[in-house]
Amino acid sequence: MSMVCLSDFEVYAKKYLPKTVWDYFAAGADDCTTRDENILAYKRIRFRPRMLRDVSVMDIRTKILGSEISFPVGIAPTGFHQLAWPDGEKSTARAARAMDTCYIASTYSTCTLEEISAAAPGGLRWFQLYIHRNRAASQHLVRRAEALGFQGLVLTADLPYTGKRRDDVRNGFRLPPHMKVKNLEGAFEVCKMSLLDPSVTWNDIYWLRSLTRLPIIIKGILTREDAELAVKHGVQGIIVSNHGGRQLDEGPATIDALVEVVEAVRGRVEVYVDGGIRKGSDVLKALALGAKCVFIGRPALWGLAYKGEEGLQDVLRILQDEFRLSMALAGCASVSEIGQHLVQFSKL
Amino acid sequence: MSMVCLSDFEVYAKKYLPKTVWDYFAAGADDCTTRDENILAYKRIRFRPRMLRDVSVMDIRTKILGSEISFPVGIAPTGFHQLAWPDGEKSTARAARAMDTCYIASTYSTCTLEEISAAAPGGLRWFQLYIHRNRAASQHLVRRAEALGFQGLVLTADLPYTGKRRDDVRNGFRLPPHMKVKNLEGAFEVCKMSLLDPSVTWNDIYWLRSLTRLPIIIKGILTREDAELAVKHGVQGIIVSNHGGRQLDEGPATIDALVEVVEAVRGRVEVYVDGGIRKGSDVLKALALGAKCVFIGRPALWGLAYKGEEGLQDVLRILQDEFRLSMALAGCASVSEIGQHLVQFSKL
Amino acid sequence: MSMVCLSDFEVYAKKYLPKTVWDYFAAGADDCTTRDENILAYKRIRFRPRMLRDVSVMDIRTKILGSEISFPVGIAPTGFHQLAWPDGEKSTARAARAMDTCYIASTYSTCTLEEISAAAPGGLRWFQLYIHRNRAASQHLVRRAEALGFQGLVLTADLPYTGKRRDDVRNGFRLPPHMKVKNLEGAFEVCKMSLLDPSVTWNDIYWLRSLTRLPIIIKGILTREDAELAVKHGVQGIIVSNHGGRQLDEGPATIDALVEVVEAVRGRVEVYVDGGIRKGSDVLKALALGAKCVFIGRPALWGLAYKGEEGLQDVLRILQDEFRLSMALAGCASVSEIGQHLVQFSKL
Amino acid sequence: MSMVCLSDFEVYAKKYLPKTVWDYFAAGADDCTTRDENILAYKRIRFRPRMLRDVSVMDIRTKILGSEISFPVGIAPTGFHQLAWPDGEKSTARAARAMDTCYIASTYSTCTLEEISAAAPGGLRWFQLYIHRNRAASQHLVRRAEALGFQGLVLTADLPYTGKRRDDVRNGFRLPPHMKVKNLEGAFEVCKMSLLDPSVTWNDIYWLRSLTRLPIIIKGILTREDAELAVKHGVQGIIVSNHGGRQLDEGPATIDALVEVVEAVRGRVEVYVDGGIRKGSDVLKALALGAKCVFIGRPALWGLAYKGEEGLQDVLRILQDEFRLSMALAGCASVSEIGQHLVQFSKL
Repeated sequence: MSMVCLSDFEVYAKKYLPKTVWDYFAAGADDCTTRDENILAYKRIRFRPRMLRDVSVMDIRTKILGSEISFPVGIAPTGFHQLAWPDGEKSTARAARAMDTCYIASTYSTCTLEEISAAAPGGLRWFQLYIHRNRAASQHLVRRAEALGFQGLVLTADLPYTGKRRDDVRNGFRLPPHMKVKNLEGAFEVCKMSLLDPSVTWNDIYWLRSLTRLPIIIKGILTREDAELAVKHGVQGIIVSNHGGRQLDEGPATIDALVEVVEAVRGRVEVYVDGGIRKGSDVLKALALGAKCVFIGRPALWGLAYKGEEGLQDVLRILQDEFRLSMALAGCASVSEIGQHLVQFSKL
Repeated sequence: MSMVCLSDFEVYAKKYLPKTVWDYFAAGADDCTTRDENILAYKRIRFRPRMLRDVSVMDIRTKILGSEISFPVGIAPTGFHQLAWPDGEKSTARAARAMDTCYIASTYSTCTLEEISAAAPGGLRWFQLYIHRNRAASQHLVRRAEALGFQGLVLTADLPYTGKRRDDVRNGFRLPPHMKVKNLEGAFEVCKMSLLDPSVTWNDIYWLRSLTRLPIIIKGILTREDAELAVKHGVQGIIVSNHGGRQLDEGPATIDALVEVVEAVRGRVEVYVDGGIRKGSDVLKALALGAKCVFIGRPALWGLAYKGEEGLQDVLRILQDEFRLSMALAGCASVSEIGQHLVQFSKL
Repeated sequence: MSMVCLSDFEVYAKKYLPKTVWDYFAAGADDCTTRDENILAYKRIRFRPRMLRDVSVMDIRTKILGSEISFPVGIAPTGFHQLAWPDGEKSTARAARAMDTCYIASTYSTCTLEEISAAAPGGLRWFQLYIHRNRAASQHLVRRAEALGFQGLVLTADLPYTGKRRDDVRNGFRLPPHMKVKNLEGAFEVCKMSLLDPSVTWNDIYWLRSLTRLPIIIKGILTREDAELAVKHGVQGIIVSNHGGRQLDEGPATIDALVEVVEAVRGRVEVYVDGGIRKGSDVLKALALGAKCVFIGRPALWGLAYKGEEGLQDVLRILQDEFRLSMALAGCASVSEIGQHLVQFSKL
Repeated sequence: MSMVCLSDFEVYAKKYLPKTVWDYFAAGADDCTTRDENILAYKRIRFRPRMLRDVSVMDIRTKILGSEISFPVGIAPTGFHQLAWPDGEKSTARAARAMDTCYIASTYSTCTLEEISAAAPGGLRWFQLYIHRNRAASQHLVRRAEALGFQGLVLTADLPYTGKRRDDVRNGFRLPPHMKVKNLEGAFEVCKMSLLDPSVTWNDIYWLRSLTRLPIIIKGILTREDAELAVKHGVQGIIVSNHGGRQLDEGPATIDALVEVVEAVRGRVEVYVDGGIRKGSDVLKALALGAKCVFIGRPALWGLAYKGEEGLQDVLRILQDEFRLSMALAGCASVSEIGQHLVQFSKL
């Protein structure tokens, strides 16, 4: 089987992962409309490619919150990597470092933050956080992440409760007994849903800020109103995300919401986007519409499922090559030349 | 078989109901365009969900015409419940009461109003009325309903003649001999179509009002012009409805018509909507666009077909859970926080 | 097999007609885009039905060029009816008279005008004309039609050459030897295509007018510019038509072109439409958009193929019943109440 | 098998060509969205046909850069014709001359320019050029083409690097050993990709101009900005092209881009278009939107695959007949009567 594009990895993962695991990774809320719209919305954007610009030397590096990465694609936080590959998040961390990009480790990792750090010392990593009912536990996690050299704190804002993913309900999905949400062990009893605090509000950003010097990135923003609030509450970055369509079904596709958020933010903080990225040209579209960087969720899991660290590197390398080629064919030699003039929304 | 969402009940009902009964319940007029559009139109509405609002305490109760219900979903009037379950409308009444919501009993019930009342004393119920050529018979029905404690009178306006439902014509659909339209027995010979009076006009609202102290709700309004007339003629409520797409094919989807009607009514009377509700998030969309409450037709019949009273409760409970979750994920802790800012119409 | 709607007749005809005959009747030019668009375009129009209007007495009669017909649906000119039924156009004429409507007999009939007239004396009939290279022959036909009591002359304007219908080319379609284009026998050698004169212009309307006192209706107009020219050249009526999608593929659907033509004509002459009528509600839409009457082509042939005169009456009766019901459900008791307020173009 | 329209040739070619060859000719970049959009976009354009105009004498000839051709369809540059037919580009040249139209020979021909010229002396031919890293080699090619009587130089601007065509990667596509890119032999080692110079800019047009008296046509322009630059840098013609969807996926369909380019150019240079032409009416649409001539790529290859020179003539003759018929049915007797009034963009 030759792995030419990201959907080849998807086909592989669907074939070789246990059905309940595949279903869990693939799941969208309700009718999966938003999950699928994340992808379809990219198809409605057309390039306006420019010709005869010197693209002999391509520079695809960029910076996020001051850290340079080899190209504007990072790893979004997703849970339970051991379901995809025995080494779990350790492999993810190694692949991200090898490809010189950013990995956002999830609270719901099956390796501890310490294991992740040890697996790939020096890699650029952010830590994804839910605020728990037990604030002390959340505080403890933040301090551990900071001490371990994580360089950003990503607060997920769109999960006061878990979305209704029908297949998971039908399958009675749960983590196999030999896997653990290790980061939470000891801090309190692991009883997934009840941990999360649905009473969190914007004021908790101030509390979070009081705990750490790390920059705070808020994930899950989809409207101009919330983008404005995020800036006002002092976050350093916004990830436009609908949690891969796993939370509220029939919200906007992230690439559509990006336009609204970027407009509201007016450059005051960095804006990223996740959801629906399947080709290098999707990355180019997101950047043209104002994203500083994109993050991939499911494709990273497919890469892990294929060959662990190596498979994830394959996924990233394909995206990197496709991104570089798209840039060149659109007439951009460096990321700084990418702008809104490159795209238009299709009439269809 | 696990019943996770409403379409699971649909699959069940299609499998286990006799074909002519399934066809009768499923039937739409002509090409069934409007029946299907009722559902598709919801898919063209996108949420604009808000984050980081305290949704730890959820209040999903609402009031319709002053009566509190546990959540803004009632049972629309549909005929012949014994076709779905032996106890017929008695089961429907019990389920509605158990779930603390409103049941609109149809003139074409297979149980009498008296049986329905006795089955679930104290439940909130409205009575759905057609105006018959024999006005004395209609008057008699109104008086019976009022005496039995029904709290609203729903006048169906969109059936001067019955729509052309091809499958019913092909099947030669008729009620089996052991079932009766019991409410009409005695009053006159049951010969379905000839009973209805196609000469009814807005002036008959005044006549109806002269018969009863009950609030009058008009069902079947789809235009701003008729909404204006309804208000002018003193109704207390409007149900935006196209009779489940069973009357005039290729009229508007009800959720689209709702926008027009709500705008015309400007809060002077309560506006409800039926048709196409299949998920809790559909309820949220309808409320965001100005409906005070929605009513479900076919899904209630599927619930009955599944397990009678219990099955209908399952259907209502799923909708209730989904509605509560959608509200929370959209950032609303109570029904009063739902507004038009939550939705936008998709470009597609 | 129960015949409930027009597509039942289509299914029958496709099953029982010889393939080359079916293909000839069904044929559209090139990719058949316009043929199919004629139907799809109706689906993009939504009714705005009005309620509680007295529809107890329905009047669906109308007048075209001063002649009353039982409802606003006539028979469009199509060729070679003997391919569908042995009695050919004689059956068509009888059915039209029985249903009290107008039949436009084609030049390419397989019965003579005299046979058609004799088959159904007193029926309302118009004669469809092509202008031939041999003007004397055309003149002769006009005079025959007038003498036989035809009450209108329909000039087809959209066939300077025959459209490219791929299936007919593949099938090598030609009339079987025992059938003749009888109207043209004697006048000149029948060699179909070379007869038609592609040099015809608007000035030939003046020539035609000089030959006859009959009103002239022009068929095949699709633009406001040509509608204006038609009025200027003194025609009495316009049939908006694309020849059933058999001539120039990818022109407008007729119901879309109707809007443009009606607007340009501003009531100065009557406007009719053909193409894509499959339901009574399509007729209602066409009238709401300004057509005085519609004409059906292929559905008439399906009716003939089903049971000759009787089958065509079935088709017309179904359309009539559906039209009456649609009117009532939309709140119109007579044709004069139909107006543009009844419809809107769907956003989809 | 009767060859009635271009897709008949496509079916033939797909059936009889080796799979890797078919895949190479059919390939589009990435998801093939733009390849397919080139065709679909034509379907969204509707004609506004005019009636009763004298179309008895049809004149479909036109001129490109002063040379008369029998109708406005030429052969776009495509590589490796020997893959389709043993005589390769020699057959192409003969067919183009026989049909009295223009053939743009590709740098990547499997026959030399000298062989092509000798095969069809006197034919109208342009030469398609890439600028290579080795400028002397490019210069040599230009001089050879000029000396051989080629009458235009087509600079391809959209291939600084080759697009990602997944099937070619999977198939490991390469020219079979017995075929050669003969034009490049001797000049330098044939190692396809490294030859092309991705540093080419608009200034190189000046350099090219310094080498030759031939008119320069630039191919691959898709935006108004680049059209303006092309005019400013003194080209004589622009071919609106996306390389058949083989380079940057999800750019605009060429017929959509044509509108933008024609508007920007304001008649200062001739504008042509390629991509998606499958019917004579597509040619008419392109001319109505301002193209002086269209060029066909894949359909020419299908013609070659069918019967070499003869097959390609069949393809051209079908397009010619269809174009003439479309013109007549739209009411145009000569190319000069074609204008924007003939078309409108469909709402769908």
